[in-house]
Amino acid sequence: MPRDRVTLAAAWAWIDAQPAAPARELVPVVQAAARRLADPVASGADLPDQSRAAADGYAVCAADCDGASAYNPLPLVVQGAGPLARGAACLVGAGWPMPGGADAVLPQEAAQPAGSWLDVLAPVAPGTGVARAGAIWRAGTMLLEAGRRLRPQDVACLAALGVTAVPVLRRPLVRLVVAGPKAGSDVLTPLLEALLARDGAIADRAPDLAYAAAPDAIILAGRSGDGPDDTAAAVLQAAGGTLALHGVALRPGETTGLGAIGPVPVILLPGEPLACLAAYDMLAGRLIRRLGGAGAGLPYRTVHAALARKIVSGIGLTDIVPVRWQDGRIQPIGEAGLAAAVQADGFVMVAEGSEGYPAGATVPVHLYEAADP
Amino acid sequence: MPRDRVTLAAAWAWIDAQPAAPARELVPVVQAAARRLADPVASGADLPDQSRAAADGYAVCAADCDGASAYNPLPLVVQGAGPLARGAACLVGAGWPMPGGADAVLPQEAAQPAGSWLDVLAPVAPGTGVARAGAIWRAGTMLLEAGRRLRPQDVACLAALGVTAVPVLRRPLVRLVVAGPKAGSDVLTPLLEALLARDGAIADRAPDLAYAAAPDAIILAGRSGDGPDDTAAAVLQAAGGTLALHGVALRPGETTGLGAIGPVPVILLPGEPLACLAAYDMLAGRLIRRLGGAGAGLPYRTVHAALARKIVSGIGLTDIVPVRWQDGRIQPIGEAGLAAAVQADGFVMVAEGSEGYPAGATVPVHLYEAADP
Repeated sequence: MPRDRVTLAAAWAWIDAQPAAPARELVPVVQAAARRLADPVASGADLPDQSRAAADGYAVCAADCDGASAYNPLPLVVQGAGPLARGAACLVGAGWPMPGGADAVLPQEAAQPAGSWLDVLAPVAPGTGVARAGAIWRAGTMLLEAGRRLRPQDVACLAALGVTAVPVLRRPLVRLVVAGPKAGSDVLTPLLEALLARDGAIADRAPDLAYAAAPDAIILAGRSGDGPDDTAAAVLQAAGGTLALHGVALRPGETTGLGAIGPVPVILLPGEPLACLAAYDMLAGRLIRRLGGAGAGLPYRTVHAALARKIVSGIGLTDIVPVRWQDGRIQPIGEAGLAAAVQADGFVMVAEGSEGYPAGATVPVHLYEAADP
Repeated sequence: MPRDRVTLAAAWAWIDAQPAAPARELVPVVQAAARRLADPVASGADLPDQSRAAADGYAVCAADCDGASAYNPLPLVVQGAGPLARGAACLVGAGWPMPGGADAVLPQEAAQPAGSWLDVLAPVAPGTGVARAGAIWRAGTMLLEAGRRLRPQDVACLAALGVTAVPVLRRPLVRLVVAGPKAGSDVLTPLLEALLARDGAIADRAPDLAYAAAPDAIILAGRSGDGPDDTAAAVLQAAGGTLALHGVALRPGETTGLGAIGPVPVILLPGEPLACLAAYDMLAGRLIRRLGGAGAGLPYRTVHAALARKIVSGIGLTDIVPVRWQDGRIQPIGEAGLAAAVQADGFVMVAEGSEGYPAGATVPVHLYEAADP
């Protein structure tokens, strides 16, 4: 492995110094869920646009119902559409415009229809069952801030505003060049495509670096070490690229490299699958999440849990220790490589200044559950 | 609204009594991330298939390095491929088969090449840098259980097993029939399409119930009450369907209905967007998540937080109260409808037997963040 390893903090500093001004694109509102909004959105008009019934019932003048009860039903004339006459009531459904002169919607359970009359069985306070113009929001109200990852209700809000297409941050396009496996089948392509999709990026599988589309980042996966067949660094140089850092004090993941071809950042990831996963999460994913307008943080939920067994770690290396739940505590996983990755419910990071944790210590655990990118 | 409302528990019991045996389909491994595995997966063979180098370095017989140090370098002959001779070393890269007779990989930093010789600068323990056959997993090891939502590393595991297509649970196909809005633009279609996509379902927008494809469930959205223009129940009946329940003691969402057309469950959802969201989450989503092989639980993360202001709730109704974070506490939202939905960070459920919570009470909050369906 490269001998001049930098700290994880130095690698993060390099990543965070890369320009990250995501481009934007316009998408139909029905495809905007889970995308990040490019511009803030304010309401252009009051909602509702006019005073509307908020419930099914009878539009009335509340004063006409004063004193009504089951023992003292008050009669009102049932009228059709148009401004409400005093002493009258008009059947309305939720969402209908309130007739002029009406100030409340009498619930159906407080009304006893009797032909062209209605017996009011309870009083109703003015404003009951009415959504006044602007009751949901007023024109000019700031509704959705730029950068927000749109939730279903946010998309509904855009639709309510009459927006049909919305500017969102473009998904980062990541060229993915995977070295052929040393043995067995290609594990890195499905691993990295799934990670990129999870982080909101579009994987652009390419046979080599000469491939033409202009990506936002490039991942060269496999052959990242300095063993006899580790060609990734040479491939990058041959394509006119440079390595800014090669070797990170991260275990697994030591052979990760960070560089560029022209303005495009390039990350070399190790070929061992667990190392590739760890290095993606800690380094490549950080770059890609930033390019997509997300924060630099891990896309995993963090909880605190007690260790069932001690973790020993070397000073000077950040260790990524896969763990699984066991009886409400977390247990470092004895298996290696992919077996550890599939058995893991999450991982513990042991910082480079730490020698590990004793059994029973409560530590932060990053859970392998998808969170919003 | 319907007057014979059932409790939320009764509505859940109806939903949970619906058959939920998701069908399966075969998908390419590269498209299997985030899908649910239909069958358990065990390894068919040892991984590695044979003893392989786990690191770059020199394959050696560890005994040949005993006593080596920088002050006492021990020379070894560098040989090419083939079984290792005693007193020899062979350059290997991580993943390469170990030469016969070698039992350790000497790290490059412990070796000083000198032409056709190598000076060993440190001893190495037998097994160092070697992944023996089956070190990751043995043939027959159970790796992935049925029903697991496949994570990136799980997909990598399938690829490592040589699987190219994997049986997963089919996404539920949900016919979505949305009544025209009473005012303004259609908010329900984008809202429900986003919710269905989040919950792993495929929305099949249809103009009416007569549409032909055979869905796993049907959502009729809007016009679910019993006001003058509330036609959903009648539309269902005209199509030969029946309502098992109409009216749920859920606020908002009281006008939700549960029924069927033939063997296909049908859910009537209210047209007011916040009510539609609440009723989808509490009822329709539960059905759909079960149809997709997920648990019946809410797809939201739950935390506990202190209330900044009291919540008052009526006995006999389950209240869904949108809340937002404010100074580390949660604040019930004063706004109504969509404005509350977009401002909400989550919601508090107040059970039907509760009159609410005082200010300062610590309550469970369901956060509007996507979690794994």
